[in-house]
Amino acid sequence: MNIETLLYTIGIAAVAVNASSGVLEAGRRPFDLFGMVVVALAAALGGGTLRDVMLDRTVFWIADQTYLIAAIVAGMATFTLVRLVRLPTKLFLLPDAIGLALFTVSGTQAALSVGAPWLVASLMGVVTGVFGGILRDMLCNEVPLVFSGELYATASWAGALLLVGLVVAGVGAGWAALAGGGLVLVIRLGAIVFGWRLPVFTARK
Amino acid sequence: MNIETLLYTIGIAAVAVNASSGVLEAGRRPFDLFGMVVVALAAALGGGTLRDVMLDRTVFWIADQTYLIAAIVAGMATFTLVRLVRLPTKLFLLPDAIGLALFTVSGTQAALSVGAPWLVASLMGVVTGVFGGILRDMLCNEVPLVFSGELYATASWAGALLLVGLVVAGVGAGWAALAGGGLVLVIRLGAIVFGWRLPVFTARK
Amino acid sequence: MNIETLLYTIGIAAVAVNASSGVLEAGRRPFDLFGMVVVALAAALGGGTLRDVMLDRTVFWIADQTYLIAAIVAGMATFTLVRLVRLPTKLFLLPDAIGLALFTVSGTQAALSVGAPWLVASLMGVVTGVFGGILRDMLCNEVPLVFSGELYATASWAGALLLVGLVVAGVGAGWAALAGGGLVLVIRLGAIVFGWRLPVFTARK
Repeated sequence: MNIETLLYTIGIAAVAVNASSGVLEAGRRPFDLFGMVVVALAAALGGGTLRDVMLDRTVFWIADQTYLIAAIVAGMATFTLVRLVRLPTKLFLLPDAIGLALFTVSGTQAALSVGAPWLVASLMGVVTGVFGGILRDMLCNEVPLVFSGELYATASWAGALLLVGLVVAGVGAGWAALAGGGLVLVIRLGAIVFGWRLPVFTARK
Repeated sequence: MNIETLLYTIGIAAVAVNASSGVLEAGRRPFDLFGMVVVALAAALGGGTLRDVMLDRTVFWIADQTYLIAAIVAGMATFTLVRLVRLPTKLFLLPDAIGLALFTVSGTQAALSVGAPWLVASLMGVVTGVFGGILRDMLCNEVPLVFSGELYATASWAGALLLVGLVVAGVGAGWAALAGGGLVLVIRLGAIVFGWRLPVFTARK
Repeated sequence: MNIETLLYTIGIAAVAVNASSGVLEAGRRPFDLFGMVVVALAAALGGGTLRDVMLDRTVFWIADQTYLIAAIVAGMATFTLVRLVRLPTKLFLLPDAIGLALFTVSGTQAALSVGAPWLVASLMGVVTGVFGGILRDMLCNEVPLVFSGELYATASWAGALLLVGLVVAGVGAGWAALAGGGLVLVIRLGAIVFGWRLPVFTARK
């Protein structure tokens, strides 16, 4: 298996993991199978879709519907599984962190490839990584989880900025992606293990 | 009146009916006239707009503002009417079902015409048919109705898949549209009359 | 300083003011720094982004990331300030009204420049002016403020329609923009001072 095939496979896996997280999140609501599938699709494909629409690229799952099929299958499988057995939420933390790293890298690279400025490119990495989760929570009528709690979007942004900085500094795309993605993973896993957080805002009344 | 004119007229009517449903839904909230118009526009035009943006087509109501005018007029008329008389909600069920069938067919055909793969094309039919209602509920800060209750999106998806299958099988576009739209209508009306539902998800705690 | 530079500077200022209003609004929620930045970006850039995506133009802050930097800096500065001193909400009313006028004018002109029909063009002015605020409230899981209260979107729409009418009547683009933007400002400030409102909708039960 070469590197391209490996990255493609991880991309499909990241989409599937996000679809599962969408179903687990929506599970608190009395949604039917269709509602579940919509939330799963929004969580899995929302970030990349927003990125592609804003960058005026062909939406990735319209160009290759394997992503769409992976999201639907993973969503339905999770829907079935959670009715049979109790899945520990922590089961998803590691694949989700890998997915965040991969989405961040692919989103940043996609933006750089169409000539986006550096700050925009890094933000597109974050959008790809976290917007799906924000959309999932909006559909469930909840305040997005990613706006508080352990470092998540911050891990994504730090990695995206490192990637952009290395590319600007002349480092090869492959090494920059590895370093950027690695930083996302290290910060996110550190945040899970050690409870790293950003300061929470409270306005003076 | 030829078939093209008939379809166009039904399309305008479907937009108007969805705008009215938006106003009826928003009626539970203390919105002013502008808020009503926004919810009416979101309900009537949201699905087709998302489809066109994702497929990178010209947004249908920007290309032909008759749709926009129909939505505004229908929204304002409903706004006025509901302050004068009490409209039975059930009044809208039949035109809404016809609108769902038509939106599903037009959305699926639009996606097929730009070469989208089969599953994507069927999903675009569903997006066109139901996203307006999801957006309407999100603006009203409510959990989308379409995620539970009698079959709605499922009717749309079944019809869209039938349409795509018939086109792939070599059936003419007109007959495929008639069969697909007819199936949406039959399932949706059956769901209203007989209370057909999908199983509701409840996660094990 | 010529007129183009002035308009550009006001545009940047309008983005910054909207970013600040996003942070002030989100301040009621226990968001962290990243959550604040997202809400600030949504409030500041959301309207123009939706306009550009629907008109199939290059998104303005992707083409020129000065807007993005202004929004992030203003958001973070407000985040810091509100933890130190208590900012009176009314402080933002005048710059916000100027921003609404400018966003309305720039949105309407952008739509006219790509050949949008008159009603669509005026609506794009409104979308540019008010969608950021709607998105901000949706992210905070609240019913959008702009759907009720003192005239806001109505001021935007009135000015946009005047601008389009003057352009159609053959008045120069500069004068039309001045008149349209002026009308937005006059109605909005009048609404703040005199409490002008649209009738609120209440459906008969």
